[in-house]
Amino acid sequence: MKLKKNEISEVLVIKLEKGEDLLEALNSIVKRENVKAGFFTGIGGLNRVKIGAFISGKYEEITLEGQFEVVSLLGNISIKEGQPFIHAHITVSKKDGTSFGGHLLSGSVIYPMCEIFLIKLKEPIKRRFDEETQLYVLDL
Amino acid sequence: MKLKKNEISEVLVIKLEKGEDLLEALNSIVKRENVKAGFFTGIGGLNRVKIGAFISGKYEEITLEGQFEVVSLLGNISIKEGQPFIHAHITVSKKDGTSFGGHLLSGSVIYPMCEIFLIKLKEPIKRRFDEETQLYVLDL
Amino acid sequence: MKLKKNEISEVLVIKLEKGEDLLEALNSIVKRENVKAGFFTGIGGLNRVKIGAFISGKYEEITLEGQFEVVSLLGNISIKEGQPFIHAHITVSKKDGTSFGGHLLSGSVIYPMCEIFLIKLKEPIKRRFDEETQLYVLDL
Repeated sequence: MKLKKNEISEVLVIKLEKGEDLLEALNSIVKRENVKAGFFTGIGGLNRVKIGAFISGKYEEITLEGQFEVVSLLGNISIKEGQPFIHAHITVSKKDGTSFGGHLLSGSVIYPMCEIFLIKLKEPIKRRFDEETQLYVLDL
Repeated sequence: MKLKKNEISEVLVIKLEKGEDLLEALNSIVKRENVKAGFFTGIGGLNRVKIGAFISGKYEEITLEGQFEVVSLLGNISIKEGQPFIHAHITVSKKDGTSFGGHLLSGSVIYPMCEIFLIKLKEPIKRRFDEETQLYVLDL
Repeated sequence: MKLKKNEISEVLVIKLEKGEDLLEALNSIVKRENVKAGFFTGIGGLNRVKIGAFISGKYEEITLEGQFEVVSLLGNISIKEGQPFIHAHITVSKKDGTSFGGHLLSGSVIYPMCEIFLIKLKEPIKRRFDEETQLYVLDL
């Protein structure tokens, strides 16, 4: 286990709109705002969901078509190879309530909107490549 | 995409108790405390779950009876038509772990309790009616 | 319903690593850091999941083996019988996206990692034993 203390600088209230790619839209915001550390929660809806599961060192992808509630979007922002990077997991539900979750990938399309509250931190957090898991992990 | 910066004023630690309606109880707290902007996370239990899914411009409702863990409650507070308004999504699980989620509706009954941490923001956030989606959306 | 106002002192950014017990590792951090009040969100992965559901006054346990995404970890820290105490609920998903949730128990094993953002509060929060539900509840 590793731990680093940080402080809150501000909160970004974000509305993403229909047709936007959830991960790509968030990516452009954190790059434009130069967010070097932070974490967020969000709710909303998607009409296309693209998620992954980390199995044996790589992400296996799933695409779900149809209307879904975003019941939980949780993620964080750090610096990976000099750029703001988002790591997010999402849970969506169908109209019968059944829910599906995974690692958020590009290709998840918003409908009707997503509402995200991002807590920006003062001190940058970095990621480093970890040979063993073949992942970029937090470098605390 | 739209974005507005905000700052944290304080944290409200909330315990809701058995028999209370989750959404109604939260509503009375944010009205009493005059919360004009904020967001929250929560966990707990329910013995009746009423959720909706936004399909073709309206919410289709589901009611689930029985004992459920509230594994995730995420939501936000804004001002809609002059009053504090809560938008929340919830995920619940049965004793075999299977989980169900959706847009939180009135009629979800707490048992044994819910523990909610609400981050109150300084600057008010408003909602406006959006003709196209027929929803009150964040007005950032 | 009960409510108490609190303020944020700082944010603990936590990385837990493969092989660690999620709840036990978090427990040792909050004890070492002497966290007397707070709440957290987290994402990551587990290769063993041990969760419970509160049914008729006790927790029924489930153990899931295999690789899971932690799509949502939400919880809080308070003081129970003089010691920092964690109450957390978790939702995990399999590689087909299906998701399972419950009250986090010891015995959930991390792989490849978990990333947790913990908001530490200034004023301690206590728990007290509640005869009726047979649970330690927040004493607000």
